[in-house]
Amino acid sequence: MQGNKITFNVNKKQDFREWYNEIIRKAELIDDRYNIKGLIVYRPRAMRVIKEIYKLLESELEKKGHEPVLFPLLIPEENFQKEAEHVEGFKAETFWVTMGGDEPLNEKLALRPTSETAFYYMYSLWIRGFSDLPLRLYQSVSVYRHETKATRPLIRGREFLWVEAHDAFASKEEALDQVRSDEEVTKRVLEDYLGLPVLFFRRPQWDKFKGAVDTYAADVIMPDGSCLQVASTHYLGENFSRAFNVVFTDKDGKRKFVHQTCYGPGVSRILAALISVHGDNSGLIFPFNVAPIQIVVVPIPGEGVAEYSKNILEKLKQFGFRAFLDDSEDTPGAKFYKWEFLGVPLRIEVGPIEVKEGKVTLADRLTKKKETVELSKLIEYVNNFSLSQVQRLRNRAKEDAEHFMAYASSVQEIKEKLKEGKKVFKVPFCSLELDGTNCAELIENETGLEVRGELLNDKKPTDEKCIVCGKPANCYVYIAEAY
Amino acid sequence: MQGNKITFNVNKKQDFREWYNEIIRKAELIDDRYNIKGLIVYRPRAMRVIKEIYKLLESELEKKGHEPVLFPLLIPEENFQKEAEHVEGFKAETFWVTMGGDEPLNEKLALRPTSETAFYYMYSLWIRGFSDLPLRLYQSVSVYRHETKATRPLIRGREFLWVEAHDAFASKEEALDQVRSDEEVTKRVLEDYLGLPVLFFRRPQWDKFKGAVDTYAADVIMPDGSCLQVASTHYLGENFSRAFNVVFTDKDGKRKFVHQTCYGPGVSRILAALISVHGDNSGLIFPFNVAPIQIVVVPIPGEGVAEYSKNILEKLKQFGFRAFLDDSEDTPGAKFYKWEFLGVPLRIEVGPIEVKEGKVTLADRLTKKKETVELSKLIEYVNNFSLSQVQRLRNRAKEDAEHFMAYASSVQEIKEKLKEGKKVFKVPFCSLELDGTNCAELIENETGLEVRGELLNDKKPTDEKCIVCGKPANCYVYIAEAY
Repeated sequence: MQGNKITFNVNKKQDFREWYNEIIRKAELIDDRYNIKGLIVYRPRAMRVIKEIYKLLESELEKKGHEPVLFPLLIPEENFQKEAEHVEGFKAETFWVTMGGDEPLNEKLALRPTSETAFYYMYSLWIRGFSDLPLRLYQSVSVYRHETKATRPLIRGREFLWVEAHDAFASKEEALDQVRSDEEVTKRVLEDYLGLPVLFFRRPQWDKFKGAVDTYAADVIMPDGSCLQVASTHYLGENFSRAFNVVFTDKDGKRKFVHQTCYGPGVSRILAALISVHGDNSGLIFPFNVAPIQIVVVPIPGEGVAEYSKNILEKLKQFGFRAFLDDSEDTPGAKFYKWEFLGVPLRIEVGPIEVKEGKVTLADRLTKKKETVELSKLIEYVNNFSLSQVQRLRNRAKEDAEHFMAYASSVQEIKEKLKEGKKVFKVPFCSLELDGTNCAELIENETGLEVRGELLNDKKPTDEKCIVCGKPANCYVYIAEAY
Repeated sequence: MQGNKITFNVNKKQDFREWYNEIIRKAELIDDRYNIKGLIVYRPRAMRVIKEIYKLLESELEKKGHEPVLFPLLIPEENFQKEAEHVEGFKAETFWVTMGGDEPLNEKLALRPTSETAFYYMYSLWIRGFSDLPLRLYQSVSVYRHETKATRPLIRGREFLWVEAHDAFASKEEALDQVRSDEEVTKRVLEDYLGLPVLFFRRPQWDKFKGAVDTYAADVIMPDGSCLQVASTHYLGENFSRAFNVVFTDKDGKRKFVHQTCYGPGVSRILAALISVHGDNSGLIFPFNVAPIQIVVVPIPGEGVAEYSKNILEKLKQFGFRAFLDDSEDTPGAKFYKWEFLGVPLRIEVGPIEVKEGKVTLADRLTKKKETVELSKLIEYVNNFSLSQVQRLRNRAKEDAEHFMAYASSVQEIKEKLKEGKKVFKVPFCSLELDGTNCAELIENETGLEVRGELLNDKKPTDEKCIVCGKPANCYVYIAEAY
């Protein structure tokens, strides 16, 4: 990047998709020129953020009693075929290994599109009695899907990064509690650490994970008003435990099938969401918690500046911050432009005046406002900044999202408000069970929008009618375009 | 594990392979009952160690200027075929993806057996001028080889964990310096942090990585006297840069091929080595730096013990140690046995006497010796222990390895010393170039041992003769059995 002047001149509001396509390439986050369609290379700047996102997710999952494991990439075809709905759901998009060297294999082996059928094969060996439960295990891996839809870097690819947690319980109640726990983990990481507000839905029955009893999922509203699913958690009931014979002896001495859940936050998509939601026309804005460089120190040449800057760098590193001193030969102006583009949350400017007065000037990437403080207050300032920046990012993101949201009491009203720029509609709706399918299809045909589900903690309608069929509404659903 | 009494009763000295097979299963490190041959499941206790090993390797590589990336798992067949020796070396053991859903793919895609042919395809796009060099990138991934030899968990499998670093330089000198840097990283992690002495060899020409100019590799001497290669680094010269057209404009304005190296420490094998080398007849002994639990607190029931123990646990956690309080209902004796078996480096015993006197009793897993110290000195004690334990492990491992080593000045002497239990022989040898092949084969036929190479810093012989052909020896080589 050094030496090559960056030119970035796309208006995010006017053309978000173009903005996104430009920034992920020009900021050298990913490279999609690899010679297999739908597979991308993650470059250092993206990988550093991804590693931090993984740390956050793993840490929160471990606090909730999960332990790390690693299962094989390859899954025998016979495992796949054990749960009938599951195999139907995934077979069209599974990559198959069929050869080892020049020899055909005895059995086709799937590249994991998701790992239920690997994990639960072993769970049937590991789980014997109630004292083996609950079992909560996770792995951080890539998964593979032979997508036929158009791919888009980090958002829809044939290889993507995620965490998958697979849990087994003695009862349905514990399994349903786990769904709440997964919601907490999702919100803690996305909202508290990354500043990304999420809508946590129970999905309609016609849009659930194949093999699940119920699917719950978190959507982020993107800058174009479309929803991006960034995590999902599924109550699997006994569907897989019956298929894989995962049985335990309960306290009452009876043999029972375990109740299961699985949870998958998508790390590639979380990265896509934070790039998209937080960035602006000057470039990226990373949340402080996961920024590859949290603080850049830019010296403005003058007496004593070089040493003063180095001391600041050392002090920041000592306190555990990811700090970088840009003592390259670019002009300060070029450095400001570059590090703003690359989304460094906080810039410290040090010139002869700061040296003389024992101060530092701090520039906030988000507001672009500057402030000068005593050097002795620097660490306190940075500590406060690290907390406030993510709050401010989250508040701004929330406002942006709310700007797209509206209540509608008829399909006609949705159509009208779409013209005014609204994109996400809350409406009373008959049913998320299969008997609501026709109403959902009609909405999709009329408006191009999908029923995303009901919020997990939302109130139920009292005397409203479904906006399509006019029958009593049993839930409020959100209707939006989806990635 | 709770509730099920562990029985472990194998003598490591008498039957190391049986000891290894028992311990990896009974300590629940891995499970090899997954239904594809050669693929194992890493259980939590192994994954926690693996994550720590990765942190160490990544941190040392980053100190040496490497940055993290992630390349696709899949490699097009056409990339593979670009470097003729390389494709010959790997084609028999490559897994191929040939189908997406029910449809055959247009081109066969390899599961990465190693990623030169993925990385260098992109290097030809990324590298333009001398300011793009040196380029040092690494990824932490699994790789896949359709092994036809007998597999053995963590040591030889069809899927194994490693780091691969791929570096490009403007000159041969810089590339050869990188080999030294890779040796330093290997020794720092294995010897300093994990207590595993390594022999760092230049391998013979007939035993090099396919596509390399020269291969260097680190062997650990295992408890049966055989060598386990745990890391290798290859000087690739211009072999791949010519095949992939990785060209830069040098300071003199001329277009030149880059010089390349690649480095691969094997994380699965490093785990196998540390289990094998450090464990004893009572079970595992983890190096403090990577132990999943570094310190276990075992209360001996009595007045004030419960609270005293909890305070100790909190204090240890506060100082960043991975500590665990075993307040289960097992007897103290059963707890001692269990945590010794699971290799926790340090045990703290707290009974009524300790509470009364304000002390703690500490038991070292390695020596099984106990010591009682003032509670106020606990953190200082643990800090010292964390440094001394790995030194003591390393010293013990070095003694064990040296016990197998001998100098020999004839093939006959090797045969005699083999009977005395020696396993690794240093001998004067004619040549590691291809003209030494016949002598190496003769040694192998006569003794069953392989020429592992010469130590990177070893002296050259002055007037000795090759122990096979009698020609002037140009190096000392080590001869041993290899995994």
